[in-house]
Amino acid sequence: MLDLLGLLAYASLVAFFRLADDAALAVSLADKADLAEMAVAEFGHFQLLRRRIQELNVEPGDAMHPFVPAIDEFHARTAPSDWLEGLVKAYVGDGIAADFYRTVAELLDDQTRRLVLEVLADTGHAEFAVARVREAIDADPAVAGRLALWARRLVGEALGQAQRVAAERESLARLLVGGKVTQLGEIGRMFAQLTDAHARRMAALGLAD
Amino acid sequence: MLDLLGLLAYASLVAFFRLADDAALAVSLADKADLAEMAVAEFGHFQLLRRRIQELNVEPGDAMHPFVPAIDEFHARTAPSDWLEGLVKAYVGDGIAADFYRTVAELLDDQTRRLVLEVLADTGHAEFAVARVREAIDADPAVAGRLALWARRLVGEALGQAQRVAAERESLARLLVGGKVTQLGEIGRMFAQLTDAHARRMAALGLAD
Repeated sequence: MLDLLGLLAYASLVAFFRLADDAALAVSLADKADLAEMAVAEFGHFQLLRRRIQELNVEPGDAMHPFVPAIDEFHARTAPSDWLEGLVKAYVGDGIAADFYRTVAELLDDQTRRLVLEVLADTGHAEFAVARVREAIDADPAVAGRLALWARRLVGEALGQAQRVAAERESLARLLVGGKVTQLGEIGRMFAQLTDAHARRMAALGLAD
Repeated sequence: MLDLLGLLAYASLVAFFRLADDAALAVSLADKADLAEMAVAEFGHFQLLRRRIQELNVEPGDAMHPFVPAIDEFHARTAPSDWLEGLVKAYVGDGIAADFYRTVAELLDDQTRRLVLEVLADTGHAEFAVARVREAIDADPAVAGRLALWARRLVGEALGQAQRVAAERESLARLLVGGKVTQLGEIGRMFAQLTDAHARRMAALGLAD
């Protein structure tokens, strides 16, 4: 449980920094402000998760520490090279995070579930990215292929790091299989749901999965 | 009036990005989170100011645009080279901004004054920096000289860009002299108050002005 909170807290904190960084790639002030707003929402998630960790009398830094390498490496390997890649990463990342929150919420005690649902209600700030990406594809259809490749790489890197975390932190893997998800097949189904949802998001962006 | 809102809005937006950047220099996750929290507060100011600009039926980008060069150049010339310089810049910048808000609030119409006071009430997030800087000076008294020099450079650069803005935007200079501040001597007094307050902040940090 604490592992899950630590993982989500660090992921949110880093998402804040990365989104703020990526916003610098925007040309217009309005686009910059939109992405900055997503960054601020991530920081809000971090604050909620940190508070819950503190309530459990744990130092937030200690809870987050085990997940620093996997999350830092994910971002180091997926630094957007331009504004459109940043937008796709923001939209895809936000969507996968929301799916994940929705899935794990069922496995948690009441108080933590309420927290996770609160965080979940505050996702969806990336919807503006859909319009921007579609505009860019309309203006130059060639970008669709490049962005589709990019989105596949994002998901591949995310799954790679998720496997690493699951292998290193047995407790977390057990939490995910210990609740209603009691069989390995169930985990597979969870991943299948996540990738189905990802495919729907790709279609929304106008990208082939 | 619109000039003032545009200036403050862009200054807040950029402060958000720069603080988020500077937070990356922090070693501990707790320090990172503290500076990120300041960044988020700046974004809150930006949102309030942007809303007021929109209420006046002006495109926020248009209102901010004239102040992009001066503010960008200020930050380009004052990029902190380490975490302590980042802390001093956050603390000094937050303090000067608060003083400025307090001073101009008297010159504004009721609605804008309420807005500026609302923003003002949300400053002061930089107090944590005082403890950190004093700890660093206790550990190594030699850093005091370097940081004092750095703080002087920050104020010098800020005043330089302020003069540039005042020279280029007559309307803004008129606003500042058009209200209760009716004489050039009054502007001088306003700057004297700002620099007195700055000297008090330097003392709080344990730095000679």
